Amino acid sequence: MRRLIGIFIFLGVLTFGCNSFAQDPSGAATLAANPQSPVDYVWVLVCGFLVFFMQAGFAMVEAGFCRAKNATNLMAKNTIDFTIASLVFFAFGFALMMGTDYKGFIGISGWFLHGENYDVGKYLMFFWQLVFAGTAATIVSGAVAERLKFKAYFLYSIAVTALIYPLYGHWVWGGGWLSKLSFGVGHVDFAGSGVVHTIGGFVGLAGALVLGPRFGKFAKDGKPKAIPGHSITLAALGTFILWFGWFGFNPGSTFSAHQLRIAVIAVNTNLAAAAGAAVAILLVFLKTKKWDVGMMLNGCLAGLVAITAPCAWVEAWAAVAIGAIAGLLVVLGVYFWESRGIDDPVGAVSVHGINGVWGLLSVGIFADGTYGLGSTGEPFVRGLLYGGGIGQLVAQIIGAAVCVAWAFGLGFICFKFMDKFLGVRVSPEEELKGLDIQEHGTPAYPNFYTYNS
Amino acid sequence: MRRLIGIFIFLGVLTFGCNSFAQDPSGAATLAANPQSPVDYVWVLVCGFLVFFMQAGFAMVEAGFCRAKNATNLMAKNTIDFTIASLVFFAFGFALMMGTDYKGFIGISGWFLHGENYDVGKYLMFFWQLVFAGTAATIVSGAVAERLKFKAYFLYSIAVTALIYPLYGHWVWGGGWLSKLSFGVGHVDFAGSGVVHTIGGFVGLAGALVLGPRFGKFAKDGKPKAIPGHSITLAALGTFILWFGWFGFNPGSTFSAHQLRIAVIAVNTNLAAAAGAAVAILLVFLKTKKWDVGMMLNGCLAGLVAITAPCAWVEAWAAVAIGAIAGLLVVLGVYFWESRGIDDPVGAVSVHGINGVWGLLSVGIFADGTYGLGSTGEPFVRGLLYGGGIGQLVAQIIGAAVCVAWAFGLGFICFKFMDKFLGVRVSPEEELKGLDIQEHGTPAYPNFYTYNS
Amino acid sequence: MRRLIGIFIFLGVLTFGCNSFAQDPSGAATLAANPQSPVDYVWVLVCGFLVFFMQAGFAMVEAGFCRAKNATNLMAKNTIDFTIASLVFFAFGFALMMGTDYKGFIGISGWFLHGENYDVGKYLMFFWQLVFAGTAATIVSGAVAERLKFKAYFLYSIAVTALIYPLYGHWVWGGGWLSKLSFGVGHVDFAGSGVVHTIGGFVGLAGALVLGPRFGKFAKDGKPKAIPGHSITLAALGTFILWFGWFGFNPGSTFSAHQLRIAVIAVNTNLAAAAGAAVAILLVFLKTKKWDVGMMLNGCLAGLVAITAPCAWVEAWAAVAIGAIAGLLVVLGVYFWESRGIDDPVGAVSVHGINGVWGLLSVGIFADGTYGLGSTGEPFVRGLLYGGGIGQLVAQIIGAAVCVAWAFGLGFICFKFMDKFLGVRVSPEEELKGLDIQEHGTPAYPNFYTYNS
Repeated sequence: MRRLIGIFIFLGVLTFGCNSFAQDPSGAATLAANPQSPVDYVWVLVCGFLVFFMQAGFAMVEAGFCRAKNATNLMAKNTIDFTIASLVFFAFGFALMMGTDYKGFIGISGWFLHGENYDVGKYLMFFWQLVFAGTAATIVSGAVAERLKFKAYFLYSIAVTALIYPLYGHWVWGGGWLSKLSFGVGHVDFAGSGVVHTIGGFVGLAGALVLGPRFGKFAKDGKPKAIPGHSITLAALGTFILWFGWFGFNPGSTFSAHQLRIAVIAVNTNLAAAAGAAVAILLVFLKTKKWDVGMMLNGCLAGLVAITAPCAWVEAWAAVAIGAIAGLLVVLGVYFWESRGIDDPVGAVSVHGINGVWGLLSVGIFADGTYGLGSTGEPFVRGLLYGGGIGQLVAQIIGAAVCVAWAFGLGFICFKFMDKFLGVRVSPEEELKGLDIQEHGTPAYPNFYTYNS
Repeated sequence: MRRLIGIFIFLGVLTFGCNSFAQDPSGAATLAANPQSPVDYVWVLVCGFLVFFMQAGFAMVEAGFCRAKNATNLMAKNTIDFTIASLVFFAFGFALMMGTDYKGFIGISGWFLHGENYDVGKYLMFFWQLVFAGTAATIVSGAVAERLKFKAYFLYSIAVTALIYPLYGHWVWGGGWLSKLSFGVGHVDFAGSGVVHTIGGFVGLAGALVLGPRFGKFAKDGKPKAIPGHSITLAALGTFILWFGWFGFNPGSTFSAHQLRIAVIAVNTNLAAAAGAAVAILLVFLKTKKWDVGMMLNGCLAGLVAITAPCAWVEAWAAVAIGAIAGLLVVLGVYFWESRGIDDPVGAVSVHGINGVWGLLSVGIFADGTYGLGSTGEPFVRGLLYGGGIGQLVAQIIGAAVCVAWAFGLGFICFKFMDKFLGVRVSPEEELKGLDIQEHGTPAYPNFYTYNS
Repeated sequence: MRRLIGIFIFLGVLTFGCNSFAQDPSGAATLAANPQSPVDYVWVLVCGFLVFFMQAGFAMVEAGFCRAKNATNLMAKNTIDFTIASLVFFAFGFALMMGTDYKGFIGISGWFLHGENYDVGKYLMFFWQLVFAGTAATIVSGAVAERLKFKAYFLYSIAVTALIYPLYGHWVWGGGWLSKLSFGVGHVDFAGSGVVHTIGGFVGLAGALVLGPRFGKFAKDGKPKAIPGHSITLAALGTFILWFGWFGFNPGSTFSAHQLRIAVIAVNTNLAAAAGAAVAILLVFLKTKKWDVGMMLNGCLAGLVAITAPCAWVEAWAAVAIGAIAGLLVVLGVYFWESRGIDDPVGAVSVHGINGVWGLLSVGIFADGTYGLGSTGEPFVRGLLYGGGIGQLVAQIIGAAVCVAWAFGLGFICFKFMDKFLGVRVSPEEELKGLDIQEHGTPAYPNFYTYNS
């Protein structure tokens, strides 16, 4: 809520600084009203570009962790989701999420960025919110990889960016009811452990459940078998791109360069990634005596997901602790879902879903009370370990529970509904041959001799 | 012209603010004269870095869309063109393009950034113009891929960055005659649909024509056959990198962060890319019932090329329309050139050439009159749909026609000339074996079993 | 030293501007004391993100230049080194390097960023110094590729980021004795040709020496044989990423956007890269009549390494000269080490070690006296060709000699020590099969038929 208010005040100054309720498409009035705004625009845009680039990271990670025979399909899905997100969020999603609040539940203005939304400040906020919506959308493709029809993914992408994501987003970042909980300072989620990652992860879980596991993932006795991905180099490249993009995702979420706390956020983001990677690779080494690269990469991403909510409100040592626990959770998560017969080819549910929840909770534990949104004079966020009592943690638990229920529930309805009316899973023949030929007419690597594991 | 004047005024302030005609190599005098300039320097540099990174995007797209046996060659070409651009544009190109104007035709100062050009403002502008010149140069490698000698590409790179690009660039961005047309506000091209992409695309067409098609591209009856590229993952990665880099290309072309319109430009850039991708994949699906990833990627790039000229002067809905039409044009373009027996392995002519022209024209249609370069008090750009009459469209048509004629004409002369004196096409044996062994001594993937399609 | 003093003054203003010795975790006091600081924070952070992204570049270059059977191992090493750097530099390295100076030899404050280091200015500096430490660490993995045990690399990473790098770094950038030499303005190294690249390169040489060459690298008569890497496309992609990241590395080392000299630094960085690439490919072509892509990429990197120390103090033409000589040196270097029986799979010693030294020396030759750190009123750096006499060159030679001796000496001790107690080289069987299976349990490309060259 605090963050939201801060953003509103900031946008208010930008948009309405010159004369009330006038749009400013050229930016001249906004600049005149706030001559210091260029550095904020530069900061938000450059960070937004980095967040956009995470699309490439997800594409490479998912392709790398899946088989060569489905690589074209994964490229198609990772491109179409952001394409659809761009158009649908422009038409509906942004209005539902960030438009004028209606009863704490939904936004109701800003459709097609029309009318008074033709304004530099509004466009800036749209750009920022869009790249986040696109991130939530693309998380799911990993969990449903190697068996979901492209057409179903196309429709799913519309559902998530027009409805599932923006409504929950409104409740936390759009002035909705979760941000106004009377525990702590209300439910808070600095850069979206919940809004982006838990949403993406649990919609992905719903998809994986509805689809069922890939052929060959489980032996007849139910024992999971490893299906190795086709390129560890691409998976590592993708992880580095995501890590890089996260430096936009988290520090940029101040929405202002005048919050010098951005330096702390960058450090925390990095430390959590490193701690997650280190713990994950060491844990698996203790068990298997192999240095498991895939798990290290997922540990790194888990740390990044977890630090996303608390990044602005904790100290460096806490970031290490949060990341380390994330590294543990992702390892346990991967084993847990597998033991339940759920097939999540890239570990998206454990990385984004579970650690999104952990990130939300960690705010209620580690927030140290040194920062709110400084400029707005709001009360600072303070957790259990820093004398904040149980209040913030309760707010975080409520938000996390709502997030999981909403994402999983609507995701499940969405995939079940599609399954009933057009089928979500490709035919067994197609799955065995790979989705690339039948769905796209193009194998990803026609000059190489490949075989299917 | 307006843009140019704005840049000149800006540079004038930077360079001459302290005392007239003094160079300022340390930047101290420039900073003293304009204490707000650091944010502009940061903006231009960071956006310039992103534009540079598009080199990697072009390399990956071209490699991905071509065969494994020519991948080393494509890496060589995509590296050498920027290498040569850097050195040649430093020596000659920058002076011809942005130097003191001589009769509206050519620039005549700034060779080797020598003398009074040892100045932070001049270096900044050089860096910006260089990364654009390098982009124009690298577009061509796709159209002439898989059959052009490396030596010829080496020489071509000199020609384009020393002559073809800088002269046309001078006419539009260097104060030359096109920018001073008495239609509309003169011919305008915000970020280079014409200067960069049409130039690159039509020099590429000339190269493809002089070279002739690859073996196996056309059946004996002239029917085109698909020659699939060797890595859809690399092609998608390259497209994401280009999309990312375009956020530098277009918004950075304000050359100032004090133009808050940068937020609008970023949104427009993204929407056009998405609309282009969506239209292209849907169109091909209607025809073939396959979700064609290659065409979606090219549709995305086509949208980006088209929005490059109008990005600063149109509203979001218009960006969607411009991108959607670009998605249509690129599909038609690919079929058109193929039907004429022209072999453009990666679709560079359709993506950059045709959509560069479309981008120029779209300014004359959709420019909505809300923006010029606000800071300079110039008249704003206004097209047909917003009461601007036919004037701006005429200026755009003239510029586009000159651009196509200049690029194709000089490109044709250049390739023909090289063909006469040293031959531009590799031997049939080499083409069949792939260019990597003979030209470079190194196959790209020596640890993999590959075969040539 | 000058740079250091500048940074200290800058940090001093930031940190202590409001009230002496108070930490400022929210950044509000720092902003109040210096309202212009946001643009500096944005600049340093964005450039730092780019430097971080170089990790992906190193990973791709090294994987591309090595064989498919070791690609997983290279991804593991390139991830773990930055992971360890993050945690170890946070715990110890940063304090040793940038903490309060003790007798010119070592820093002694700032452990775990604790206490008064919980401050936006300190966190900013930590982030910057960390991404540099991580770069130094990752350089070594190339020189020791395809035969070093993962466990040894794990331990080496701790040694280099906890001790070898921070101590030498303290001597140059932390107020230590080298920065206070009474020749010239003391030993200077603008962005780390010595601190980062010479250190990394010569620790790598020590590792390569202790390990010995890979099987098959040298014939029985000692004649070197080429062992081609498995993906020229990844190597080229990695080089573009590094080139891109270097635009953060060098210009960002002003640590302030108010130094408009950043424009000159960006131009110089790019010209040196281009000159190095051009000279390297032309030299090898003259000798072999092949356009050697690998050498062009290394020539490009060599130019970047060499310009890193002098980038802020020279003019554009000098950057071309420095880069061109780097291109020559890297070709000679590769042949030289091979002729001595030393196996450096990716040329890391020649690229980073030799050209790091050349970069340090070039300051003493080409620095033109137009820039120091302008804001601090320090004497400007001036070399031999610009009337600076022999003083600066002597300071540079001393620093380079110390750097080589320190890096090689401690690196040698470190690898020898590890070899004695746990062995550094994998078994001959494992080396022949590739490190991926035995160490990591995962081949990098399980869907492709590969063979080992």
